[in-house]
Amino acid sequence: MPQGQPSVVPDDGLTTRQRRNRPLVMVHTGIGKGKSTAAFGLALRAWNQGWPIGVFQFVKSAKWKVGEENALRVLGASGEGGTVDWHKMGEGWSWIQRAPVEAADGADSNLVNAAKAREGWEQIKRDLAAQTYRLYVLDEFAYPLHWGWIDVAEVVSVLRERPGNQHVVITGRNAPAELVEFADLVTDMSKVKHPMDAGQKGQRGIEW
Amino acid sequence: MPQGQPSVVPDDGLTTRQRRNRPLVMVHTGIGKGKSTAAFGLALRAWNQGWPIGVFQFVKSAKWKVGEENALRVLGASGEGGTVDWHKMGEGWSWIQRAPVEAADGADSNLVNAAKAREGWEQIKRDLAAQTYRLYVLDEFAYPLHWGWIDVAEVVSVLRERPGNQHVVITGRNAPAELVEFADLVTDMSKVKHPMDAGQKGQRGIEW
Repeated sequence: MPQGQPSVVPDDGLTTRQRRNRPLVMVHTGIGKGKSTAAFGLALRAWNQGWPIGVFQFVKSAKWKVGEENALRVLGASGEGGTVDWHKMGEGWSWIQRAPVEAADGADSNLVNAAKAREGWEQIKRDLAAQTYRLYVLDEFAYPLHWGWIDVAEVVSVLRERPGNQHVVITGRNAPAELVEFADLVTDMSKVKHPMDAGQKGQRGIEW
Repeated sequence: MPQGQPSVVPDDGLTTRQRRNRPLVMVHTGIGKGKSTAAFGLALRAWNQGWPIGVFQFVKSAKWKVGEENALRVLGASGEGGTVDWHKMGEGWSWIQRAPVEAADGADSNLVNAAKAREGWEQIKRDLAAQTYRLYVLDEFAYPLHWGWIDVAEVVSVLRERPGNQHVVITGRNAPAELVEFADLVTDMSKVKHPMDAGQKGQRGIEW
């Protein structure tokens, strides 16, 4: 709940307005809950501004976060705010007709997922270059970075050089230090207490 | 991203299903970003389940979080998911025809706000008793508790005794220890880095 007053005024030659409208890279990391939900909450604000939103979901299961997906699809189609494109790695990205790496029986599924994750990143690069969206939600993108499937230095370089006014929010545990160093806003969600610690399993409406 | 396997199985006589569907009290606290946005992200899941949602916004300004409010109003009216009632303390709660404590010139505005906050809590008690909602978003409710405007022990007692299957999420810095102790799920949002530290002011689509 920042009250709008910066604690220091930088000597960067920018006006307050220029500084205010600077595009941000935001990271939600840590082992607690709320990394993705906060990112999708942010998407509600972007939607309300009429911004085009691109969600890239770097998760294996196509069923995850179906609540957020359905809600943002309804919002995007309502004609009242911005548009929403929702891209899922789960069954293969929608822009790819045929998965280039098929999971043959016994194939290393990590190789398949690494290839899929890189395909997602390639599309993000194209969209950033084309300024397709005003807000990018790169959900669980910290994982392929952490696992070395996508080169962190390249990601930081692409984000640094992105044109226009494009905000990017990246979620996931173990966000690499190089990304945290580069990002404008970083929040660590710490677990204080979770029902699973008390033996409770996840439930609908809460976990998905 | 819990994988659905509890770390311990409690000896509480409940079946997994009973335990799974146990209503939760969730707290998002800490000085970092994402406490409210994660709560509103959670509301997207509840909406997708078709649950009636009640938002009680314990903030002074009626303009705050207008993005989330507009989005949830559109979702609630879409006919595709649950309903959404959005209650704001800002200009006086909507169910109160006339503010019982008017801010006369020179009156202590904290007294006015404390009275308004208590009115909000009284309505929440009525709604919990009537099982009006399936998810309650008590946004920034930690503040009136922290400031002593509303008695924490009473809140915990009411939440403990609430009937049916009603989930409650409470946001705000400085959640009182007694509430944290009682809650099922607590996440602390820690600030690692924030643009205001670098002299940047808040901007539309991001802060509101």
